[in-house]
Amino acid sequence: MFAPPIQRLIAEFAKLPGVGQRTAQRLALHVLRGTDADAASLAAAIAEVKAQVRPCEICFDLTDQVRCRICEDPRRDATTLCVVEDPADVISLERTHEFHGRYHVLGGALSPLDGVDPEDLRLPELYRRLRGSEVRELIVATNPTTSGEATALHIARELRGVAPQVRVTRLAAGLSVGADLEYTDEVTLGRALLGRREL
Amino acid sequence: MFAPPIQRLIAEFAKLPGVGQRTAQRLALHVLRGTDADAASLAAAIAEVKAQVRPCEICFDLTDQVRCRICEDPRRDATTLCVVEDPADVISLERTHEFHGRYHVLGGALSPLDGVDPEDLRLPELYRRLRGSEVRELIVATNPTTSGEATALHIARELRGVAPQVRVTRLAAGLSVGADLEYTDEVTLGRALLGRREL
Repeated sequence: MFAPPIQRLIAEFAKLPGVGQRTAQRLALHVLRGTDADAASLAAAIAEVKAQVRPCEICFDLTDQVRCRICEDPRRDATTLCVVEDPADVISLERTHEFHGRYHVLGGALSPLDGVDPEDLRLPELYRRLRGSEVRELIVATNPTTSGEATALHIARELRGVAPQVRVTRLAAGLSVGADLEYTDEVTLGRALLGRREL
Repeated sequence: MFAPPIQRLIAEFAKLPGVGQRTAQRLALHVLRGTDADAASLAAAIAEVKAQVRPCEICFDLTDQVRCRICEDPRRDATTLCVVEDPADVISLERTHEFHGRYHVLGGALSPLDGVDPEDLRLPELYRRLRGSEVRELIVATNPTTSGEATALHIARELRGVAPQVRVTRLAAGLSVGADLEYTDEVTLGRALLGRREL
């Protein structure tokens, strides 16, 4: 058995997602082998992130200000809003350089079995934000999973009452770029067929 | 782009072994989603491990005391010493419950190309420890890799001068328990043949 402080650190690392006992042990021994300064800066970064980061008051993306950089950027198109589940999804969409509107981060997807109901997400805030706004299109970019689809359908239905002027769209489903038909699952391939486009 | 404190934490996590950019991002967002108490206890565990853990003054295994628990345990056989590369190897050997002697942690293996020479390891300390000691067998449990084998040969050669009364042994190489001959590499299979035992 390792000395108690090492055991404690292994236990802490093992709480992280995707980190098992073996990986946690490797990380802990790495920290021990490293310099004191390296360990101190890791510990400080963890403490600081919790102290300094909060949700943007408009879109609920993570920020170290009151409002995030995208909400504060006057060049972003205020007529198009993209709804995502998590802050990481904002980063993924920004990497495409194809979207120039603003975001709304739900903080998850509907999943009644896991106890995630509409009031657990930033849905009331979304409807309040849309009511009487200049938004013309709402791109619901929740994941193409059961709960992501359920969330998208829920939003589309609610919006008919709350903000009927808003067009609700969904990201296309289909083949991954560079993929092989032979190895594409039948559901995705079916969606690719249904969504086929004229050349 | 994430807010700067998140970027900093991602960069810190990405320095850990086996943690790429994507994993680092997932870990950072997990810390952000968790409670303040969880983040504080992870940060504290990292700081404490560096403050409280040091090498045992006898065997150089990690300990939060002056001497490790194995060196302090009078029931451990003082006539058998097992040389390992790293503290993690001590844990692996202890898990077998087959070894009842003591350890000596080298802190790596000889690798002149990477700049690891005999004086970078705890080899002088090993020879000092063996000279005139009651140790009768030295099990060299360095890894079955080029540098582990080189280290074992180096130790065996040096000991002839330093402590000729000590028998130097090496862990057996052979099939993994539960393995399939068909999928065993030829070097390991060759070693298994050479090391065959009478039934």
